[in-house]
Amino acid sequence: MTYNAPIEDMIFVLEELCGLKDIAELPGLEEATPDMVAAILEEAGKFASQVLSPLNAVGDIKGLGFDKGEVTTPDGWKSAYDQLVEMGWNSPTADGEHGGMGLPAVVNACIQEMFQGANAAFQLCPMLTQGAIEAVEGFASPALKETYLPKLVSGEWTGTMNLTEPQAGSDLAAIRSKAVPQGDHYLISGQKIYITHGEHDMTENIIHLVLARLPDAPAGVKGISLFVVPKFLITEDGSLGERNDMRCVSIEHKLGIHASPTCTLAFGDNGGAVGYLVGEPNVGLQYMFAMMNNARLNVGLQGVGIAEHATQHATHYAMERKQGGTPEDSGVATIIGHPDVRRMLGLMKSRTEAARILAYRAARSLDYSQRSVDANEKARHQRRVDLLIPVVKGWSTELSVQTASLGIQVHGGMGYVEETGAAQYLRDARITTIYEGTTGIQALDLIGRKILRDRGKAALEIVRDMRATALVLADQQGSSADWPALSGVVSGSAELIENVTNWILEQNGHEPQAVATDVLELFGIALGAWAMGDAALSAGRHIEGRSGTAYHDAKMKTVKFYMANVVPHANALSMIITGAAPSILNLKASDFGTAA
Amino acid sequence: MTYNAPIEDMIFVLEELCGLKDIAELPGLEEATPDMVAAILEEAGKFASQVLSPLNAVGDIKGLGFDKGEVTTPDGWKSAYDQLVEMGWNSPTADGEHGGMGLPAVVNACIQEMFQGANAAFQLCPMLTQGAIEAVEGFASPALKETYLPKLVSGEWTGTMNLTEPQAGSDLAAIRSKAVPQGDHYLISGQKIYITHGEHDMTENIIHLVLARLPDAPAGVKGISLFVVPKFLITEDGSLGERNDMRCVSIEHKLGIHASPTCTLAFGDNGGAVGYLVGEPNVGLQYMFAMMNNARLNVGLQGVGIAEHATQHATHYAMERKQGGTPEDSGVATIIGHPDVRRMLGLMKSRTEAARILAYRAARSLDYSQRSVDANEKARHQRRVDLLIPVVKGWSTELSVQTASLGIQVHGGMGYVEETGAAQYLRDARITTIYEGTTGIQALDLIGRKILRDRGKAALEIVRDMRATALVLADQQGSSADWPALSGVVSGSAELIENVTNWILEQNGHEPQAVATDVLELFGIALGAWAMGDAALSAGRHIEGRSGTAYHDAKMKTVKFYMANVVPHANALSMIITGAAPSILNLKASDFGTAA
Repeated sequence: MTYNAPIEDMIFVLEELCGLKDIAELPGLEEATPDMVAAILEEAGKFASQVLSPLNAVGDIKGLGFDKGEVTTPDGWKSAYDQLVEMGWNSPTADGEHGGMGLPAVVNACIQEMFQGANAAFQLCPMLTQGAIEAVEGFASPALKETYLPKLVSGEWTGTMNLTEPQAGSDLAAIRSKAVPQGDHYLISGQKIYITHGEHDMTENIIHLVLARLPDAPAGVKGISLFVVPKFLITEDGSLGERNDMRCVSIEHKLGIHASPTCTLAFGDNGGAVGYLVGEPNVGLQYMFAMMNNARLNVGLQGVGIAEHATQHATHYAMERKQGGTPEDSGVATIIGHPDVRRMLGLMKSRTEAARILAYRAARSLDYSQRSVDANEKARHQRRVDLLIPVVKGWSTELSVQTASLGIQVHGGMGYVEETGAAQYLRDARITTIYEGTTGIQALDLIGRKILRDRGKAALEIVRDMRATALVLADQQGSSADWPALSGVVSGSAELIENVTNWILEQNGHEPQAVATDVLELFGIALGAWAMGDAALSAGRHIEGRSGTAYHDAKMKTVKFYMANVVPHANALSMIITGAAPSILNLKASDFGTAA
Repeated sequence: MTYNAPIEDMIFVLEELCGLKDIAELPGLEEATPDMVAAILEEAGKFASQVLSPLNAVGDIKGLGFDKGEVTTPDGWKSAYDQLVEMGWNSPTADGEHGGMGLPAVVNACIQEMFQGANAAFQLCPMLTQGAIEAVEGFASPALKETYLPKLVSGEWTGTMNLTEPQAGSDLAAIRSKAVPQGDHYLISGQKIYITHGEHDMTENIIHLVLARLPDAPAGVKGISLFVVPKFLITEDGSLGERNDMRCVSIEHKLGIHASPTCTLAFGDNGGAVGYLVGEPNVGLQYMFAMMNNARLNVGLQGVGIAEHATQHATHYAMERKQGGTPEDSGVATIIGHPDVRRMLGLMKSRTEAARILAYRAARSLDYSQRSVDANEKARHQRRVDLLIPVVKGWSTELSVQTASLGIQVHGGMGYVEETGAAQYLRDARITTIYEGTTGIQALDLIGRKILRDRGKAALEIVRDMRATALVLADQQGSSADWPALSGVVSGSAELIENVTNWILEQNGHEPQAVATDVLELFGIALGAWAMGDAALSAGRHIEGRSGTAYHDAKMKTVKFYMANVVPHANALSMIITGAAPSILNLKASDFGTAA
């Protein structure tokens, strides 16, 4: 089904829940006025629905060609990519000085959600390029920037992130690829796997960002450096030179994102691929993590986008398909009238909308962390974005899988038939909880780097913000909601986060690791309650102030649905977190003996 | 990965949790002694792992051929089917008088779980034949039985269930296929969709059980009759005669179970297919529901089987794959040592084992309901099996999807690559929550026919049994478990079922319908706690009595894991059930306006 960008909801979240006006007062973002942003989102929405969405099923069905190291993308993909570049959608946040649009991260979040939602396999390519841009922009020498940045920003060339090796997946300490110094450059050799858009035919060059070890590098994570390795070398005058000593050995046959080439790349089969060191030796992993933060936010947005598209698809079907009687219509009614179908669609819609708010708020904090002139504000938002990234990445992607699966269920038997299109969302979404760090890795990041390292400071700051929302909710008058009840749900959610944070800080053993994924899910649901509480406040102001529309009524009902159907699960997670760790840690490999 | 039948666990459940010895004292089941059953399961396990399992990936990859109405199954499938027939595995519960093995339903449950787990797409064919056998055996005339039963029981011919039409899915009242009387038979016309194994090349004939309407039939569900419609007519001497006027128009391209032909069948394009009325006119739906009960139990077992296979696959991978350090090994350890991986495998293993016990207990009650000579006992077990079927079908299948998805997650990026095989379980499992009645339909059956209709009698009977288990748990001595805590979890689970049952009985509106799926999940989890409580009692007796093995230790840990990691979700569901219905019923089609 054609994707429709949920622009009304996006603008509501931007303006009323993320303070877009204030963001537009940050230095460098002055052009992001509400009118300008609305116009940009309108255009981006058209591109998503008219250009990217129609190629989504085609890409899934046709997939990729692969022959002698060359990848062929499906018909229409190169043309769509050319349009993306021409319209400047490749890298909306990049600095104007390098040819970017210089948009706030929070506005880019809308654009990325749209493009990922319309066609996840396609948008992975610009997403990876954005990561490469950040690495080069942030850490490379002026010469490297000059050579590579303009064409990466424009999208004339695309970029990749080369981390994984067969023995080095979640554990990057095990990386073995080598980089040997040779004059002004390095000779790179080794094999990288799972390289998204590592080879394709949409641009004349591909710029690989590759993690490898110098000959004298220390073992482990502190001996990894980052290199720029172009597919074609660049001559002095900036034109394409020789083919570098690297090739695509194979592409994977995957459950989903069929049109996104997942490549095995061999570097240095003939002596070594020419690579250029980014920044200092041995700190490559730090650079990679800096750019990974944004990649993780983008994958979180991919989760939101796929969930949105799956929800639209299922809703459309439920409004067309007639079957049996419903509470309101005893004849043959559309199935959206069946209470269980409403429940499924309500879960799909409410969680997607909660995840959207949370993701955009992470992007908002990114803007402040990068642009605020107030050092305290800057630092506070840096803590906030650091805390939220693993939650947004982990929670949005897990719920995108659940949402896509519910979408199939709404379709009944039709959902299982590939032609319907419902199954593609599940197949595509299923990778999002794995790449750019699995949910388990996000969860360890949350409890380790984001809670234990600052002794809960960032988590308890957000608890204070949640309580502020609860207080305002408690103060509301008017009949558009049961305000004390909503306030209670938000303050209860704040208490769950506070208690779990304190529990984590009190442990001395491996208990937090054992239940880390439960912690992440609890944070997602509880922070979602906070986000939805704020959404109710805004919707309520419109409704009570007579500026309410059908959108605000629906938003209020969706908030109530979320509070009643989703938030109770956070209580269960709290019980599990504080009680289940011993039962997990006591399970040993030998206890699975029968199975293996 | 080759499927290994979990025979040790199956026998533990049969003997210690289902009272196999007592079942073998029921009339007609005297041969099902523990020794005989163990020998049968051993043989069935070999067939599952040596014959069916190796064809599972092949079937997925090669899929089916379809040309001019003929379906070609993958290489090796016909030969495997021939072996199944030859070894008598086609219909283990059918009466000896028709050539069946006459095994108890509870033993057949093990066999079905094995075969479905080893190769779900294949075993669907015998599963549907078993349904057809039940319909003919239970309701057809002696003449029809004589003609069709022996070859259906042996498996020389296969059977199908023809319910769904394009406009009649969950709502069978909308069926339009026609049956016009013509001498001793009827002429059937109409189109049926989603007919599993509706056409294939493994047997010379296929016997379709078809729902259709007589010319004078009342509208709705009370005007549907059941017919036997063979692919080839049978001559007086029992040999194959003319091809009937029916054909396979197309097969579906599906997310999973690629080697199971899902057919659109056209009846009567040339005047009408010859069909024979089963039983009385206009009560076809009742007959279909009678056989559907067993089909639903079998789909529930399919869920358990796929979950078991996915768990074995993921466990095997987690014991081989090395990545990073763990609490017990700071070097490079196998990933089964990582707490989050243990958590995922623990969820997979513990829920699968709980669902197995529950499914086998449903089958046990089926045996008593069919064979007990005590009328009260017979009726009590009929109530029990009626109550458990929707729970087993709905819960086991939903958890099979979650388990298969977790299995992918354990594999990380490898799980997303089809060659690994982990993704097939998810794709195959995804249909189980849909066919033979969606989870939503099971949930409506549970609250409507199984709770409201008898005013909670069957549900409160099981609450009493749960409390009995809790009392025995509270009485245990010895250090193999924290008995009072286990007892508390089981009695808490009993209370949740009791409260929810009473809440359902107190409602006057559509509230129970709105949260029916949550009710079903709560029943599954809470009854799973009861089942696991009994498992702990048995394991504890072995451990404390010095007859404990590694199996019993693992079982005890698995029970503790289930109680700590799974049962808390029932509390959340209880909150949702009693609180969320208004938020669901208030959502109207117009509230999804943006999406559609």
